[in-house]
Amino acid sequence: MEQKLKFWGWGYEGQGLDEQYIRQVETLAKALFGIAELPRLTPPTLASLELRSPRCQVPETLKSVCSTDKYDRALHSYGQSFYDAVRKLNNDFSNPPDVVAYPKSEQDIVDLYAWAADEGVTIIPFGGGTSVVGGVEPPQSDRPVVAMNLRRFDRVLEVDEQSLAARIQGGIYGPDLEAQLKPMGYTLRFFPQSFEFSTLGGWIATRAGGHFVMGPTHIDDLVESVRVVTPKGIIESRRLPGSGAGPSPDRMMIGSEGILGVITEAWVRIRRRTTRKWSASIHFSDYDAALEAVKDIAQSGLMPSNCRLLDAREAMLNGIAAGDCSVLVLAFESCGECCEDRFRQALNIAENAGGLPSIDVSAGDAKQGNESAESVGSKDEELATVGEDSSEQWKQSFLKMPYLREYLCARGIINETFETAMTWERLPEFIRSVRRATIEAIKEVTGRTGFVSCRLTHVYADGAAPYFTFLAYGDPERMIEQCEAIKTAAANRLIELGGTITHHHAVGRDHRPWYDQQRPDLFAQSLQAVKAQLDPDAILNPGVLIDP
Amino acid sequence: MEQKLKFWGWGYEGQGLDEQYIRQVETLAKALFGIAELPRLTPPTLASLELRSPRCQVPETLKSVCSTDKYDRALHSYGQSFYDAVRKLNNDFSNPPDVVAYPKSEQDIVDLYAWAADEGVTIIPFGGGTSVVGGVEPPQSDRPVVAMNLRRFDRVLEVDEQSLAARIQGGIYGPDLEAQLKPMGYTLRFFPQSFEFSTLGGWIATRAGGHFVMGPTHIDDLVESVRVVTPKGIIESRRLPGSGAGPSPDRMMIGSEGILGVITEAWVRIRRRTTRKWSASIHFSDYDAALEAVKDIAQSGLMPSNCRLLDAREAMLNGIAAGDCSVLVLAFESCGECCEDRFRQALNIAENAGGLPSIDVSAGDAKQGNESAESVGSKDEELATVGEDSSEQWKQSFLKMPYLREYLCARGIINETFETAMTWERLPEFIRSVRRATIEAIKEVTGRTGFVSCRLTHVYADGAAPYFTFLAYGDPERMIEQCEAIKTAAANRLIELGGTITHHHAVGRDHRPWYDQQRPDLFAQSLQAVKAQLDPDAILNPGVLIDP
Repeated sequence: MEQKLKFWGWGYEGQGLDEQYIRQVETLAKALFGIAELPRLTPPTLASLELRSPRCQVPETLKSVCSTDKYDRALHSYGQSFYDAVRKLNNDFSNPPDVVAYPKSEQDIVDLYAWAADEGVTIIPFGGGTSVVGGVEPPQSDRPVVAMNLRRFDRVLEVDEQSLAARIQGGIYGPDLEAQLKPMGYTLRFFPQSFEFSTLGGWIATRAGGHFVMGPTHIDDLVESVRVVTPKGIIESRRLPGSGAGPSPDRMMIGSEGILGVITEAWVRIRRRTTRKWSASIHFSDYDAALEAVKDIAQSGLMPSNCRLLDAREAMLNGIAAGDCSVLVLAFESCGECCEDRFRQALNIAENAGGLPSIDVSAGDAKQGNESAESVGSKDEELATVGEDSSEQWKQSFLKMPYLREYLCARGIINETFETAMTWERLPEFIRSVRRATIEAIKEVTGRTGFVSCRLTHVYADGAAPYFTFLAYGDPERMIEQCEAIKTAAANRLIELGGTITHHHAVGRDHRPWYDQQRPDLFAQSLQAVKAQLDPDAILNPGVLIDP
Repeated sequence: MEQKLKFWGWGYEGQGLDEQYIRQVETLAKALFGIAELPRLTPPTLASLELRSPRCQVPETLKSVCSTDKYDRALHSYGQSFYDAVRKLNNDFSNPPDVVAYPKSEQDIVDLYAWAADEGVTIIPFGGGTSVVGGVEPPQSDRPVVAMNLRRFDRVLEVDEQSLAARIQGGIYGPDLEAQLKPMGYTLRFFPQSFEFSTLGGWIATRAGGHFVMGPTHIDDLVESVRVVTPKGIIESRRLPGSGAGPSPDRMMIGSEGILGVITEAWVRIRRRTTRKWSASIHFSDYDAALEAVKDIAQSGLMPSNCRLLDAREAMLNGIAAGDCSVLVLAFESCGECCEDRFRQALNIAENAGGLPSIDVSAGDAKQGNESAESVGSKDEELATVGEDSSEQWKQSFLKMPYLREYLCARGIINETFETAMTWERLPEFIRSVRRATIEAIKEVTGRTGFVSCRLTHVYADGAAPYFTFLAYGDPERMIEQCEAIKTAAANRLIELGGTITHHHAVGRDHRPWYDQQRPDLFAQSLQAVKAQLDPDAILNPGVLIDP
């Protein structure tokens, strides 16, 4: 029997956190916020749900690819942000899409566009619906809304083993993509946290970032060419390993967040599955020294696959350390070549900066090779690149995070993340300042001390991407408004200090106020001009990136 | 005294090839084409030159930054393509720019735009004028033309040693840029063949490629942010190590070839100067085996700095081998870390594929370190990464090539290059087919057998960029038309087979017919829409990339 996604939370029905973990978190949260009891919100049931009647009639010719089923419409009402989680738990499905379309072919998409243009219908490309920035939410408007779900575009169409590239359909989910590549010995090696429930087309449309800290970890670098169905027709770029012919057409579509068209196919760069890994976790008592070590490794040319710095709170939150030190998770992996030498050099840099490698340093290929060969899930394999003891902890907590969100929401705990990027010379002060602004805002908004942690998710020779997590307990009835006030304070600060409003979460509707400050006005006008050209009837995803 | 650029050729007045080399080439050419004597065209003198009177009046307010001097106008009449070289030698300066502007400030550029809009003047951003694709040539039109030369924007404004980045003005030439970074121990490490006479802004505008075969060798990867003066105002992107906020504004400007604005500044990624190098040249009797070895190295994750395959003819042309084998120039370099292990692994791959390393394998740091520390010119340093014996040969011939063009033109010899890119699975047949089409076209057009060689200038995990050179001898009076016929045959073939019309030479006006086939029509329309937004009076570089 096919597993059914929860319409009100993360993952499949029946999936969630185990009892023991819940008790741990509950104890931690009570201690953190100094409260004796946490509230308990109960998730809605489908039976309890009443949705507004669809505001449009699906034409006969499109009925076979459209659904007005309650479950489908509820499932496509929201993404997966904290705001979304709260509204779902609150049984607030007041603005659902009127129709959910599951096109089977590009012609179906063309037909949907034609109907939308004729009838003034809005179409929202849904991807996997894991947007945490309001990217797939129906706008408040009188126009009927169709959520377009490409889950039927779920195949690896072609694998080029000579050039290590594959032609893959846009609606495929991470695990399906990996499962179809695996028997041939390949992987896309792209693992965002949303991996299980997000799609290739969604990754490209949102300029997503994968789990690896360096090298080709952005989807941008993995795209060889794209095929996009726009309301004006199809844009398909030529499949090339490199080109200098004018501005890149691919780069216009990468990050376009569904406002220009729907990505039905892409040629992407794949690799042979990793066979050898070297990893260690390194403890630092001095955070600034740890930052310096990460910078030196990032600038060394050694190119680790992981070099992820968790500050003391983040390490504690993930159960990797006790909260008294920050932890650097360092790893190298190869498709056959030996990385041991590079690994040792990077380890030296960290040790010279005052880092203490924990006992889990694992180098060489025998054990790692087997582990990799035997690992089943692609995410398992990827996460095995971190050191042994911390890897298990980290993996568990990485996978649990989205489930934790729905659990924490139901306990009235505000929990949100935001991420940015900054060049090294300003980074230490930038992290401190954004953290301070967040802490102060939590105190001011909720009246209680909150929790703010930070990890570096990606590093570059010229800077890094800090990723913040915050927890706060205020008025469980006003969680959205309180979270918004905290996030606004943090976003204001990071934009004021020259950061980006998003490093890999995209812009959507939620980040618009800061994106508008960040991007040059003339670029917005350029994007509007492109939009008017490709989507002249303004069918697609209004309000995302630019004004409708 | 300031050196003066030749208005009719490459480099400074007085610079050229030495007598001995000329005799060698002449002997070779006579043998190649089976002719006893070569014609001798004499370059024009400034005194012999008569230019059309300027077709516009420079307003009083702009006179201090404008020149209508004969030398200036002649110098800005052409780029550096073969067609340009022939027209210069033929004293054909029939369509010069009417004015050459040397703005000192962004306000000067704004004022020039305002005048151009009012008076229907065309402005052509000139960069260093090394375009080989008709990118800086005044179009045939009644509109007066101003060539805009940014040579006064020639400073490194800021160096961020923490983040390894520098803010640099767009009009700076390669050697000046390196000279200003060098005392601090840094380099941009970007060395296109035009390095000496091209500018940072020109590299960005044309999406140029540097000399290194892998890693960050495209200017695209070195740009942190750009500042562009468009006719509608300034676009300045935020300086960030990475961002996922909408489509990249930088990527809209990178490759825009002067049709949207002028790049006055950019933050670019610099690096510490290389201190350690490992290199070898490897001979292959079997070209397909050599291609296979290059593919395996490119897909190995070892990331060489050079892995340049010269086919037997190219190796002969460059004096590296006798024409009986192809040569792979392999090198690794570091900013301190040890690459010896990676170098040995790559060498193994090449040897296992049947390659024979020549005696010049140089590994380790002592000698290389000194060599690097003592090297003066940045290009010297860069070229020292190839093996010892072949490196000298290669370096000499790399630097001589542009001078060779003007010499060969003057001897009536058609000499041209073109470059493309292709994924590995089609590459061997692609190279053969394009080469065959070129050989056949030469025979058909000139009646004589010509010379066609190929090297791979850049390699990727998913493909490579073949760079072709051809020599032909036909009717010295009809060199342009004959060259055009040959290049058309080659371009038709490579576009038909799925290649790109340019990997790093840009599109300009010359490549338009094939670029138009290659890029999606809807992307052209999008670019036109952006152009209408940023340059509503259509002042800038008409005919390049899109129709005016």
